[in-house]
Amino acid sequence: MIKNILQFSHQLLADAVQVGETVIDATCGNGNDTIFLSNLVGDSGTVLAFDIQKQAIDSTKRRLIDEARQNVKLIHDGHERVTTYLLKEQKHGIAGAIFNLGYLPRSDKTIITKSESTLQAIQQILDYLKTNGVVVIVIYYGHEGGLEEKENVITFVKQLDQSAYHVLRYEFINQKNNPPFVVAIQKRKEKLNK
Amino acid sequence: MIKNILQFSHQLLADAVQVGETVIDATCGNGNDTIFLSNLVGDSGTVLAFDIQKQAIDSTKRRLIDEARQNVKLIHDGHERVTTYLLKEQKHGIAGAIFNLGYLPRSDKTIITKSESTLQAIQQILDYLKTNGVVVIVIYYGHEGGLEEKENVITFVKQLDQSAYHVLRYEFINQKNNPPFVVAIQKRKEKLNK
Repeated sequence: MIKNILQFSHQLLADAVQVGETVIDATCGNGNDTIFLSNLVGDSGTVLAFDIQKQAIDSTKRRLIDEARQNVKLIHDGHERVTTYLLKEQKHGIAGAIFNLGYLPRSDKTIITKSESTLQAIQQILDYLKTNGVVVIVIYYGHEGGLEEKENVITFVKQLDQSAYHVLRYEFINQKNNPPFVVAIQKRKEKLNK
Repeated sequence: MIKNILQFSHQLLADAVQVGETVIDATCGNGNDTIFLSNLVGDSGTVLAFDIQKQAIDSTKRRLIDEARQNVKLIHDGHERVTTYLLKEQKHGIAGAIFNLGYLPRSDKTIITKSESTLQAIQQILDYLKTNGVVVIVIYYGHEGGLEEKENVITFVKQLDQSAYHVLRYEFINQKNNPPFVVAIQKRKEKLNK
């Protein structure tokens, strides 16, 4: 079967990430991707999981306790401040990251991710990404404000240098009600001018 | 690594097709996909390989002889006549198909696939597809006439009922020079009114 959005997102990360590496959940939400990443990097790896909403951090914390995962650093802060939490030594060492853009499921739909901070976070993580590392962005855009963020993210990723990054769009195009789709960025190599 | 267009196309077919089944190469071209499909279905399966150009048929025939593949029926005819070559018993029995839209590589660029016959062929194959079978369409559109065919194919597949088909678009969006992309259609179930 053709993989759905969740399956494909996780497959991309599983293909790029090795046990022991460091990965980022830029929007931990209810913790589903955090748990997935935690298992992916194993006890010797690290997950940095961000969310601006305390409700999301609390919800993810409970999931981590329930599943006895101890390799996750939960960070109650905006993901646009991600580099504050990374060491210089981690430059070119982040193996993967995932964003779920939109609002926290089963929560206040007016609290949403926004282009400016989203793009700042993506750019920062790209700078820290290892060669062949991947940033997966799941774009929900059916909510108010979602379309603008979608357009801004697409504009940003389209201009990424094709010799430095592969940028893939994976989308089901015959579904109603603005279903989410995936944008995946894979670093091909470091630019020579860095 | 994120799969490129060729790798992803073949992965979709490999996931959907079993040994012993019947598949269709709607545009055999220089025979690359024909050979791939021939190996996929094995000696007990069948590949129907179409091309409107004799040069393509001859080229594919040589490849088949070189690789000693005997499960391919080469058909020098337009793919819009595909049902002429299928038995009624094969309805809902075709496991997969692939189209490469555009012109024959290293050949006359003015001889191109065209929307009308392409859409007729796609619709006919969808009618003959098994549940979970897949039609993979690789869309080259950088040539003259390519953009029109691309738009017409996209318009057609977008209106396919989402309860009956998954329609996926898989495209690298930061590459210059109109690179090919994939549209994949997977049959979910038969419509009740058939």
